[in-house]
Amino acid sequence: MRIYLAGPEVFLPDAGALAEAKRALCARHGATGIFPTDPVHCPAADAASEDWLAIYLRNEAHIRGAEALIANLTPFRGPSADAGTVYELGFMRALGRPIAGYSNAAMPFEERSRAFLGPAARRRPDGAWEDAEGLHLESFGLRDNLMIDGGIRAAGGPFVTRDVPEEVRWRDLAAFEEALHLLLEAR
Amino acid sequence: MRIYLAGPEVFLPDAGALAEAKRALCARHGATGIFPTDPVHCPAADAASEDWLAIYLRNEAHIRGAEALIANLTPFRGPSADAGTVYELGFMRALGRPIAGYSNAAMPFEERSRAFLGPAARRRPDGAWEDAEGLHLESFGLRDNLMIDGGIRAAGGPFVTRDVPEEVRWRDLAAFEEALHLLLEAR
Repeated sequence: MRIYLAGPEVFLPDAGALAEAKRALCARHGATGIFPTDPVHCPAADAASEDWLAIYLRNEAHIRGAEALIANLTPFRGPSADAGTVYELGFMRALGRPIAGYSNAAMPFEERSRAFLGPAARRRPDGAWEDAEGLHLESFGLRDNLMIDGGIRAAGGPFVTRDVPEEVRWRDLAAFEEALHLLLEAR
Repeated sequence: MRIYLAGPEVFLPDAGALAEAKRALCARHGATGIFPTDPVHCPAADAASEDWLAIYLRNEAHIRGAEALIANLTPFRGPSADAGTVYELGFMRALGRPIAGYSNAAMPFEERSRAFLGPAARRRPDGAWEDAEGLHLESFGLRDNLMIDGGIRAAGGPFVTRDVPEEVRWRDLAAFEEALHLLLEAR
């Protein structure tokens, strides 16, 4: 099974080492890991006049060519996962292929949103929480926005969360390996 | 053209009024706006044992039944757009149908990320910016994460940004109407 490895670790200075580590775990489980920065045949990207568009088109080609996707949904610069990773998760769900997620933060989304907002979070008369602009906080006890949890659930995939020490949260791969194992087991 | 109206305004206490206003603008341009909370025939959602899953499945049914999507990509609790909206954008792009975006914040993504990080943003020796954990800040001069800008561009859609006063950023619909106009014009 060729699995696209979505996640913000592409932004790490040693992204290549992470790619290798994930690829090795995939191989150990009998699968092939595809990292966003891997080369891929994509004439549209080769012809693109802008670097960022070429990167986009290659990522899209990788996803279209993969049989499944595992997303690193560890919260990224805010209460939710990295926007690019979430885009790719929705993309693969629409293609109808298996998707899985993992996060190295176990705190539920509502609590995480309240922690992020701090004193700006307030209660409505009905007891629900909202932010300083009056926008409601989801309170379903989920791991992230309901579209993320819902897409993974609808696809029958796992969404594994684990608390790991802050300083290794972009490198600890135990939750990734568990999601990989569960994804392959569900085939 | 039946257009799915993605955006975090579903979290507003008066989401219904926003839905009506967007629907009226769609009608004025000869299109039909579909709001996430509109009723939809979805047996899987009717059979779902959990409310959040039923909401997810109805949103997915709405998107699958729509001919295009306009996403409100105004930054939401962090430098990027709302995670649920971004998921839906990627989903519709994978279906190969027209997508458009708008944002009521004109500041480029890199500057917005630096403003969000504050003193935690620092320069690498090569001059690039990174966060306190060493993760790179995208610096392509885009409106949001490159997967968002890239998906809209690859689909040939508009991504309209406008600065509006902070207190009306969830209700001002000028950028929405411009995106709607450009989307319909490109047919």
